[in-house]
Amino acid sequence: MNYKNAIRRIKGADAEVMAKAREYCDTLIKPFGALGGLEDIAVRLAGITGQIKNAFEKRAIVVMAADNGVYAEGVAAAPQAFSRLQAVNMTRGICGVSVFAKAAGADVVVVDIGLMESAGTGAVLDRNVKRGTENMALGPAMTRAEAEEAIEAGFNIASELFEKGYDILGTGEMGIANTTSTSACAIALLGLAPESAVGRGAGLSDEALANKVEVVKKALAVNAPDKNDPVDVVSKVGGLDIAGLAGCCLAAAFQRKPILIDGAISSVAALIAARLCPEARDFMIATHRSTEPSYDETIKELGLKPFLEMEMRLGEGSGCALAFPTIDAACVMMNDMGTFKDISFDDSLLVDIRKEEEI
Amino acid sequence: MNYKNAIRRIKGADAEVMAKAREYCDTLIKPFGALGGLEDIAVRLAGITGQIKNAFEKRAIVVMAADNGVYAEGVAAAPQAFSRLQAVNMTRGICGVSVFAKAAGADVVVVDIGLMESAGTGAVLDRNVKRGTENMALGPAMTRAEAEEAIEAGFNIASELFEKGYDILGTGEMGIANTTSTSACAIALLGLAPESAVGRGAGLSDEALANKVEVVKKALAVNAPDKNDPVDVVSKVGGLDIAGLAGCCLAAAFQRKPILIDGAISSVAALIAARLCPEARDFMIATHRSTEPSYDETIKELGLKPFLEMEMRLGEGSGCALAFPTIDAACVMMNDMGTFKDISFDDSLLVDIRKEEEI
Repeated sequence: MNYKNAIRRIKGADAEVMAKAREYCDTLIKPFGALGGLEDIAVRLAGITGQIKNAFEKRAIVVMAADNGVYAEGVAAAPQAFSRLQAVNMTRGICGVSVFAKAAGADVVVVDIGLMESAGTGAVLDRNVKRGTENMALGPAMTRAEAEEAIEAGFNIASELFEKGYDILGTGEMGIANTTSTSACAIALLGLAPESAVGRGAGLSDEALANKVEVVKKALAVNAPDKNDPVDVVSKVGGLDIAGLAGCCLAAAFQRKPILIDGAISSVAALIAARLCPEARDFMIATHRSTEPSYDETIKELGLKPFLEMEMRLGEGSGCALAFPTIDAACVMMNDMGTFKDISFDDSLLVDIRKEEEI
Repeated sequence: MNYKNAIRRIKGADAEVMAKAREYCDTLIKPFGALGGLEDIAVRLAGITGQIKNAFEKRAIVVMAADNGVYAEGVAAAPQAFSRLQAVNMTRGICGVSVFAKAAGADVVVVDIGLMESAGTGAVLDRNVKRGTENMALGPAMTRAEAEEAIEAGFNIASELFEKGYDILGTGEMGIANTTSTSACAIALLGLAPESAVGRGAGLSDEALANKVEVVKKALAVNAPDKNDPVDVVSKVGGLDIAGLAGCCLAAAFQRKPILIDGAISSVAALIAARLCPEARDFMIATHRSTEPSYDETIKELGLKPFLEMEMRLGEGSGCALAFPTIDAACVMMNDMGTFKDISFDDSLLVDIRKEEEI
């Protein structure tokens, strides 16, 4: 199954089961709706799996690592070699995503989808489509065929993980300069103003930020991506990591499994997936609210609500790793909380309640 | 040691260790400050314990259960018997806080500090100070001596838990009508406008909300609490749960242990503690952002930042239970992430970085 055929078969969340899940929430011993966003997550999970009660034990974060040719324009604070270096470090358990994932019982699957240089270790999955994108300030970041290949690679990786028994995935990425490609995609897809949609990434000075805005404007002017063609956008001003993660989102929707969306880069990948297949949105769960300025508009179009407000800007899938316990909490709420019916079986207490209700 | 003597001995967080913790954060393999609020929590924890590296394994949520005489004014959506009923249900593992705490490896310690009727089970700790407060719309909710006794009871319970080896506590409460007492305390202490500081609690209609505003106004007019005397405020327009939790906060500060602050009711208890002893704030960590309208102003004075945005309004300590994994994440960040120095020991990778830096 390739991703294009899969898209034609993807159906949205099961509305009937979602309604039943909402109803069931209202039988739990708490005021109606008192668990707010946690109830919304539980209902969404029900719509995804078709079951009111869920548990997601085998979990992984897929980290797409790729280099970006636009690095040459001076848009990043970190050295370009960090993409590969950190991809390797993630597999050594010492990066942010590594330690948070371990604490949450999640595996980290690091994929070389577009590093300039091979990771040189079997611990990084080699699915390299291209040794880094071209400089999008001068021309397309990649060809349309390469973008499709990267989406397909992401689709296949996620599909293989689901086949191996993973029942929930998170999205992550590593790629110096990928907030530049992210901003460019968000601007192209959402019609945002570059001045307000380009951010400091990992930590740029005012001057470097002004340059980054100009670089993004130039990339958009040079390439003129078609906002109605998400593959055109991601190929011309996107990145291999973004395309790969879009493929993961499509696989989750096709397999009817939840996929957690990390920060700005993952969200724009989710947006590409959603533009290719609107039903795919139903399978996404936002996690932490990124400080990147394009994030809010991106997540708004996706109809998602992040719940962790920590002003993080690490990427790597760190927000997903921090969010797994909240997904667990949404599940135990449905699985283990008592219902009003349950407690009425305790007749000494039942009398009290009914008396109050009669007053 | 009683709480009044303890207050005189409480010292604030260790600023020197906090500075060292912040410095250490900057050596971790991530952009400076990229883990935002998580770094702030790690630094705060360092200031509390005096150690840069921490782990909090034995954890409990203290749930103070108490009834409120103001219930008679029609300010609550749930029957009054629910206070006792849910206190018991919490010990049976079927409430929100029970299932979330279990998932986070935390115990739930339910305390009858002011229930109208004995819980009738040894599973609820009996530290009853008074069988429910008086109706504050007609006169003081309790005497000053009773308020002090409740603060003392809370101080003792938390102290005993720390003595038993618990190294972090969360705050929780159960008491029908306690958002009314909470609003009244917040208005008295912070000078808020009743119309904007009284909320729907567990779910009031517009009409019932208007009545609740009038009841709070009446309670404040009848009792004229002294905003500069937090014990006066909590005794006249507060509750036994609020007073008890304030005592827990003071014990945490005295024992130099972190205490998680749940929603609106716990926050106003924390505010009482902070007004009695400003240094106590350093030991508090906010968790989820309550939808109660008095919450934001209360947490602002405390100088705290909640990080879970889920529009929850359950109380019980449910927000604390959901927050434990984030505390764990802040700890593993400090304990297990690699440093730039660590990775430079891998000389094949070091070369790459240094090369980039020379460019």
